[in-house]
Amino acid sequence: MVENFEEIDKILKLIEEKRFFKLREALIEMNPADIATIFEEINQKDITLLFRVLPKELAADTFTYLESHMQQRLIEAFSDRELSDVIEELFMDDTVDIIEEMPANVVNKILRNVDPQTRTLINELLNYPNDSAGSIMTTEYVSLKGGMTVEEAFAHIRRVGVDKETIYNCYVIEDRRLVGLVTVKDLLIARYEDKIEDIMETNVISVDTHEDQEVVANMFNKYDFIAIPVVDRENRLVGIVTFDDAMDVINEETEEDIEAMAAILPSDKSYMHTGIFATWKKRIPWLLLLMVSATFTGKIITYFEDALGAYVVLTAFIPMLMDTGGNAGSQSSVTIIRGISMDEISFSDIFRVMWKEFRVSILCGFTLAIAGFIKVILIDHVEILVALVVSITLCVTVLIAKFIGCSLPILVKKMGFDPAVMVSPFITTAVDAVSLLLYFNIASALLNI
Amino acid sequence: MVENFEEIDKILKLIEEKRFFKLREALIEMNPADIATIFEEINQKDITLLFRVLPKELAADTFTYLESHMQQRLIEAFSDRELSDVIEELFMDDTVDIIEEMPANVVNKILRNVDPQTRTLINELLNYPNDSAGSIMTTEYVSLKGGMTVEEAFAHIRRVGVDKETIYNCYVIEDRRLVGLVTVKDLLIARYEDKIEDIMETNVISVDTHEDQEVVANMFNKYDFIAIPVVDRENRLVGIVTFDDAMDVINEETEEDIEAMAAILPSDKSYMHTGIFATWKKRIPWLLLLMVSATFTGKIITYFEDALGAYVVLTAFIPMLMDTGGNAGSQSSVTIIRGISMDEISFSDIFRVMWKEFRVSILCGFTLAIAGFIKVILIDHVEILVALVVSITLCVTVLIAKFIGCSLPILVKKMGFDPAVMVSPFITTAVDAVSLLLYFNIASALLNI
Repeated sequence: MVENFEEIDKILKLIEEKRFFKLREALIEMNPADIATIFEEINQKDITLLFRVLPKELAADTFTYLESHMQQRLIEAFSDRELSDVIEELFMDDTVDIIEEMPANVVNKILRNVDPQTRTLINELLNYPNDSAGSIMTTEYVSLKGGMTVEEAFAHIRRVGVDKETIYNCYVIEDRRLVGLVTVKDLLIARYEDKIEDIMETNVISVDTHEDQEVVANMFNKYDFIAIPVVDRENRLVGIVTFDDAMDVINEETEEDIEAMAAILPSDKSYMHTGIFATWKKRIPWLLLLMVSATFTGKIITYFEDALGAYVVLTAFIPMLMDTGGNAGSQSSVTIIRGISMDEISFSDIFRVMWKEFRVSILCGFTLAIAGFIKVILIDHVEILVALVVSITLCVTVLIAKFIGCSLPILVKKMGFDPAVMVSPFITTAVDAVSLLLYFNIASALLNI
Repeated sequence: MVENFEEIDKILKLIEEKRFFKLREALIEMNPADIATIFEEINQKDITLLFRVLPKELAADTFTYLESHMQQRLIEAFSDRELSDVIEELFMDDTVDIIEEMPANVVNKILRNVDPQTRTLINELLNYPNDSAGSIMTTEYVSLKGGMTVEEAFAHIRRVGVDKETIYNCYVIEDRRLVGLVTVKDLLIARYEDKIEDIMETNVISVDTHEDQEVVANMFNKYDFIAIPVVDRENRLVGIVTFDDAMDVINEETEEDIEAMAAILPSDKSYMHTGIFATWKKRIPWLLLLMVSATFTGKIITYFEDALGAYVVLTAFIPMLMDTGGNAGSQSSVTIIRGISMDEISFSDIFRVMWKEFRVSILCGFTLAIAGFIKVILIDHVEILVALVVSITLCVTVLIAKFIGCSLPILVKKMGFDPAVMVSPFITTAVDAVSLLLYFNIASALLNI
C-alpha cells in the first residue's frame, strides 16, 4: 500500500509539470481504483485534463470508481462524443448506478448520447424498484446453450467474453429460461467433446428481479458465489448480480444500520462529500423528536417533585440509573437488530431470544445491584435505605431494559418496519421513563414519602 | 429462497422416516450452505448420521459452512479415518479457521490425522498473528511460469485446478517471487501461442503476510478483486486471500464495531450460540464501568443541591439535556468511527472534520435551542428565565458534544487504539458531565442562585 502513496505523489508532480506523455505512461500501469483516488487529490481545473490523458477503456474503468460529484462534473464537461465513448465502455449496471445519482439535466445528456437499444435497456433497469435485485444487476453475462460442446463453449466465451462483467459463471438458457450453470472451472476440467447439458449444474440458485438487495447480498455471504442470476416471474434470465455489487450493498446497508442506530437519517453520500446543510438535515429530525419525547421523563420528575424536595439526594442518582438502563437496553437491541439484518434471528426465535435475554438480564441486574449498592454506600456515603432503593431500581431497570431491547426489534420487524430505524432511538427514551417511574415508586414505598 | 424452506422440510421428513437412499439423492442436489442450515434444525443424535449420508466431497464442503460448535461435535464423533478424509478435502485456510476455534483435545485429534507436510503447513499458518493476512490466506493457488505459452498454462490449470480455491487469478512466479498476474479471462482472450510473460499484468497489487485483515478486506472493497496475493518480506508468494474470506472479515469487523458502539465486548460466536454466562461476560464489564463513571454526574448534582432545592423545576430538564447531548455526540462519533474504519477519514482530515462538525453543530444547536425554548414555554409552562437557561444549555451542550464526538475518535485512532471500543461508551458519560456542569453554571448566573 505504501508504494501506492508514493505513486500518487509522482503522478501529482507529473500533472503539475504538465509532462503528459510520461503521465499517460505512468497511469497505464496503475489500477483504475487508484487513479480514481488521484482525482480526489488534484485541483478542480485539472480533472478533465487528467481524464483526457487516459486511454479510452482505462478512462471508463476509472470513471466507475469516481465519487458521484466528480462524475457529474466530468459529464458536464464532456463533449457528446466523449460521453458516448465512456458510456459505451461501461457495464450496464454501472451506467444505471451513475444515472440514479445525477440531476435531471445530466441524465438527459447521458440518454441523448446512447444508442436507442441501450436507452431502452437503461429505462427498463431504471424501472426496477430501488434497492431491488433488478436495480443492481447487470445485463452483461455469458449465456450458453445446453447442446454446445465444451470446445464450442470456449469459442463462444472467447468471442463475447471481453465485454462481459464476469465470464466465470456461464448460464445455460433454453427459450430464454435459465436451465443450468457451468463455471469456467467446470469447463476447464471437462473434456472438449463433453456436452454442456451433461456437465451443467441444473439446480441453480437464482433471485427474482424484485428481491430486496439486502437479501441478495446475504446470499453471497452464505454461498460464497461469484455471481447470482436474476430471473423474472417466468424464470427468464434477465441479468446477474456480481460479488462486487453485493459487497457495495453490504457496506451501504451496514452504513444505514449504523446511522440509524446513532439516530441519523440514512443517505447515500459519504461523510466527507455531504454538505453542512445536508448533514444537519440528516441529524436534526431525530434530535428534535428525542428532545420532545424527553418531555415524559420531565413530567415524571415534576410529578415526584415533593419527594425530591424531601430527599434531594435521590436526584444525584438519576443520571446513573438512566445511563445504565439505556446501556443495558441498547446492548440487547443492537445485538438483536444485527442478528435480524444478518438473517440469524427471525420472528420464530422471539421466545428463545426473550428467554435468553431474561436469564442474561437477571445475571447483569444482580451484579449491578450488588456493585451499585457497595458503590453508593462507599463512594456516595448515603443511608442504607437510599442505597437499597438505588440498587433495587438498578436491577429491575436492567431487567425491563433488556426485555424491551430484545423484543421490540423483532416485533417491529414483524410489522414490516426496519428495526434499526424504528427501535434504536426510542430505546433510550422508553427506558429513561421506565427507570424513573420505578425509581420514584420504589423510593416512595421504602422511604415512606 | 422459498423453495429452500420447502426443501429443508422435505429433508427433515426423510431423516425422520429413515429413508437414507432418497435422503442422499435429495442432498446431492443441494448447495452445501443449505445443507449446513439443515444441521442446525435436526436433533443432536441425527447429526453424525446425516453427515455420513453425504458423499465425501460434499461432506467436506458442508463441514466448512457449519457453526463451530457443530464442527466440534462432529470431529469428536468421527473415526480417525473419517476425520482425515474430511481434512484432506478442505482448503488450508478453512482447516486453520476450524483449528483456531477448537479446544486443545480436538486440535490434537485433527493434527494427529493429517500427513506431516500438511501439519507443518498448518503450524506455519497458525503462527501468523491473529487478524493478519497470513492467518486468513489459503496456500492453494495456481502458479504459472512466465515462459509458458497460454496453451501450456491451460494444460497446467486443467491438471492442478480442481484442488485450488480459485483458478481465475493465476500468479506468475520466478524464483518463488511474485512477478505477474494473469486472469483466466486474459488467457481465454489471448492466442494459444502467446507467452504468459507477454500478457501478464506486472504491476500486481499484493499484501504482506502481517498486514491487518481489515486493511486487506478494505482493498477488496476498493478494487473489486477476486483474490489478493499475500507475499512475505522478500516478495515471495506464500498464499492468496479470496473475496469470500474478505466478506467474512468485513462482517466480523462490522460486528465488532457495532458491538463496541453498543458497549459490548466483541466475540467470534454468533448471538444464538453464545451461552448465558458468555453473554453476561461480554456485557457486564462496560455496564459496571459506566455505572461507576456516572459517579461524576452524581457528584455534580450533589454539589449543586442547594440550587436544586431552590429551583426543583430545574431537575425536570436533566434527562432531556443529557439525552440530547448524548445523541448529538454519538451522531458525530459514530459517523467518524465508521469513516475511519472504511478508510475514508484519516488523521490528516482532523481539522476539516472539526470545522465541518463545528458548522453542523451551530446549525443543530440553534435549531434545538429555539425548538426547546418554545417547547419548554408551551408544554412545561415554566418562567421565561428558566426556559432561557434550558435553551442556552441545549445549544452549548450540542456544540461541545459534537466537538468531543468528532475529535476523540481521530485522536484515539492516532494513538493506536480502536476508536469503536474506546470512544463510544465514554461519549455519553463525558457529555453527561459537561452538560450538567453547563446547566448549573448557566442557571446560577441567570437565576442568581
